[in-house]
Amino acid sequence: MPRNVCLWWSLLTLFVLPVAFSVGDDTSSEPPPNLVVIFVDDLGYGDLGCYGHPTIRTPHLDRMAQQGTRFTQFYVAANVCTPSRAGLLTGRYPIRSGMVEGMIPRRVLFPDDTIGLPAEEVTIAEVLKQRNYATKAIGKWHLGHLPEFLPTTQGFDSYFGVPYSNDMDHVRGNDERPAYWNVPLMRDSEIVERPADQNTLTKRYTLEAVEFVREHPENPFFLYLAHTMPHIPLFRSKEFTDISLRGLYGDVVEEIDWSVGQVLEALRESNCAQRTLVLFTSDNGPWLVQNEAGGSAGLLRGGKGSTWEGGMREPMIAWWPGHVPANRVSAELITSLDLLPTAAALANAPLPDRPLDGYNMLPLLEGKEDSPRDTFVYHRGAHSHAIRKGPWKAHFINQTSYPTKDPVHYDPPLLYHLEKDPSEKYNVAENHPEVVAELRQLFEQHVEEIARLPNPFAATKP
Amino acid sequence: MPRNVCLWWSLLTLFVLPVAFSVGDDTSSEPPPNLVVIFVDDLGYGDLGCYGHPTIRTPHLDRMAQQGTRFTQFYVAANVCTPSRAGLLTGRYPIRSGMVEGMIPRRVLFPDDTIGLPAEEVTIAEVLKQRNYATKAIGKWHLGHLPEFLPTTQGFDSYFGVPYSNDMDHVRGNDERPAYWNVPLMRDSEIVERPADQNTLTKRYTLEAVEFVREHPENPFFLYLAHTMPHIPLFRSKEFTDISLRGLYGDVVEEIDWSVGQVLEALRESNCAQRTLVLFTSDNGPWLVQNEAGGSAGLLRGGKGSTWEGGMREPMIAWWPGHVPANRVSAELITSLDLLPTAAALANAPLPDRPLDGYNMLPLLEGKEDSPRDTFVYHRGAHSHAIRKGPWKAHFINQTSYPTKDPVHYDPPLLYHLEKDPSEKYNVAENHPEVVAELRQLFEQHVEEIARLPNPFAATKP
Repeated sequence: MPRNVCLWWSLLTLFVLPVAFSVGDDTSSEPPPNLVVIFVDDLGYGDLGCYGHPTIRTPHLDRMAQQGTRFTQFYVAANVCTPSRAGLLTGRYPIRSGMVEGMIPRRVLFPDDTIGLPAEEVTIAEVLKQRNYATKAIGKWHLGHLPEFLPTTQGFDSYFGVPYSNDMDHVRGNDERPAYWNVPLMRDSEIVERPADQNTLTKRYTLEAVEFVREHPENPFFLYLAHTMPHIPLFRSKEFTDISLRGLYGDVVEEIDWSVGQVLEALRESNCAQRTLVLFTSDNGPWLVQNEAGGSAGLLRGGKGSTWEGGMREPMIAWWPGHVPANRVSAELITSLDLLPTAAALANAPLPDRPLDGYNMLPLLEGKEDSPRDTFVYHRGAHSHAIRKGPWKAHFINQTSYPTKDPVHYDPPLLYHLEKDPSEKYNVAENHPEVVAELRQLFEQHVEEIARLPNPFAATKP
Repeated sequence: MPRNVCLWWSLLTLFVLPVAFSVGDDTSSEPPPNLVVIFVDDLGYGDLGCYGHPTIRTPHLDRMAQQGTRFTQFYVAANVCTPSRAGLLTGRYPIRSGMVEGMIPRRVLFPDDTIGLPAEEVTIAEVLKQRNYATKAIGKWHLGHLPEFLPTTQGFDSYFGVPYSNDMDHVRGNDERPAYWNVPLMRDSEIVERPADQNTLTKRYTLEAVEFVREHPENPFFLYLAHTMPHIPLFRSKEFTDISLRGLYGDVVEEIDWSVGQVLEALRESNCAQRTLVLFTSDNGPWLVQNEAGGSAGLLRGGKGSTWEGGMREPMIAWWPGHVPANRVSAELITSLDLLPTAAALANAPLPDRPLDGYNMLPLLEGKEDSPRDTFVYHRGAHSHAIRKGPWKAHFINQTSYPTKDPVHYDPPLLYHLEKDPSEKYNVAENHPEVVAELRQLFEQHVEEIARLPNPFAATKP
């Protein structure tokens, strides 16, 4: 799939932002800092103790937040799995890499799809490889399960995990025992277990992560730990069975909390806590239609699949002792699109030569500057549905996801002041025509630019 | 209003529970511990940083929670102001003291009412007076504004505050400037300012509280600091004007947060932090119909005036360095009705000789035992609407409060598992007939007992 790289450069919009960086001579003998991204699946904004859940106990994440910074206005790039991951790993709205419905056949990739994240895309792993990071992906990939799309083709030295969602390959009826889900567990590009024993996935991912940390006491590393859980069907190991007041979903989140504690502990034991930035977040909001088996978006409206806040605003905790201020709650605007430029700044590595939609957030994480971001566009598949600028959010289109209904167009858009009204209850469009006008202009400009993007799969049959 | 005290004794029900205590000889020279209850007005379950609000900053309350225990299943006695305060101060469901609609003319007391909390009721202040506590009430009283009902008639040595809600006596049109609300500010039983300058109420209450702490470095004291805010109309002092991302409501809550910090600091400076139990909570849920001027119940359903969780479950933080475990989140069942028995245990003081609906929670607060409570009844005025036992809650009646609509009766009741479904989304009555049967029996038993309670105002014209 040849790409016209020059084309990208023609797409400079207000959302395509130059990120300052410099690649100096590495005069220091100190290796650059490590990066650990813990990315869980379908966790809601309200599902952690430190984000207000009354009965899910998350002492390790709560402590991580106390020792670091807890962000309250962090967004992911999409409200479902595949595009959210593409956005995080590339620093680009997922429509740029084609990882969105309209360019792929469905909202996410399925086992019968033969496409994946294009090889031309540059991931965080590839950026950090320029500075000789050891790189490992553990867990859910969901950017193509065929050999040519696996993590090892996108900058990761090694991979251990389930390549797509754990509810796919459901070939044996409606039973929820692990054996009835036929998903494969892979090491690099080999299937090592099928069906994967999902009861022990969180535990095995964790052991693999801890081992990776221990194996790299000196060298810089990037660990992308993308848990399969708490995506439905829910599984947890024996030690976490029936321990949570919140029931099965709580058990599963509490095992993830344990896992986070294990990773941080391994960093401390390897004496690399002071030189490791750890970020914890989730790929999209809670799967609300699953009732008690799904999570909670807390005070936010909507969940997975929606462009209401609950679909795309996620818990995010940043931890880096001595660098990220402790005991801080930050309402600064930050997104998963910002991780790649931030990782590049961390490693003092060059950025990819193409339009990016993220900002270097290192000064924000370190408490030295406010966020440089003031705008974010909410997409559903290939379509732009809403835009945020400062505290204001305008919904031009909204579409119920489960079950999918036709999109509803709003003119004038629904307007919410998210900092005064985080639950999107009080449409104030009538009172603020000047804000509506400004957001409309930005939105239309973005829609126009996005419409010109090529479909990476146009030449193939997706 | 003569009372037949014996009558009370005939009303022993399952909700009337003997609380073990002993009044030993005071062989120690140490005074008993101090008690500070900070009780705010209309704050929602989701309105503090440590309960998940994204844009209200509450660093002092967050720190108080880190240094103490944050409760996630704490209930107040009623979903509106007057009965909630009666319940907290007497340890009895407010229908016992007559402080409920049906016994008083409206849902709360108004300036044209000539009744108040009956003198025969025994308050926490009176319990602690038995052990020579210095006692002070600051802020909102709302249990009768005539001289014979003021705090100084109910065990408090002194009083400084506004005797009812700050939106009463609204005699000068629809302007929100303080001068347009004619509420009085009182010292003991004298009006010292009218209209009260509401902009400085939180600040003046705080200074008064700090002064009281400083004046009692040796003696045991009970401080009841019942803030007028964040009840609407919202006011805050100059230093807190336009400082919160959340707007006016946020400014007001952030000033209260500052106030809490001031009180804790005064305790530390007086070297009495180690012998002072401080409890922070609110009287009822957020006033949702006020839109952005009202608070948020977070993930809970409903708000002020309702028997959904959002109306009656509140933030509660307990702080007592060296006694209440630090950095603990507890989902144990505890209510404002338990404060009086807990205060009595703290002071080793005798309990009032009448039915109580509370439990001594001192062992729970100190992390030594689980909560002895497993049941709680949700009332609206004189009516029982719902009951909780363990994680289960059954709604037999529900009634929208703003605007008030007729009660809706449910048979079978709506049944929710609150620990798995804190947002009361998934009625599971059909799946659990045995739970419904058990809760129905307990509920009917309670309704029957409550129906026999006398109206303390039957002989008067309320």
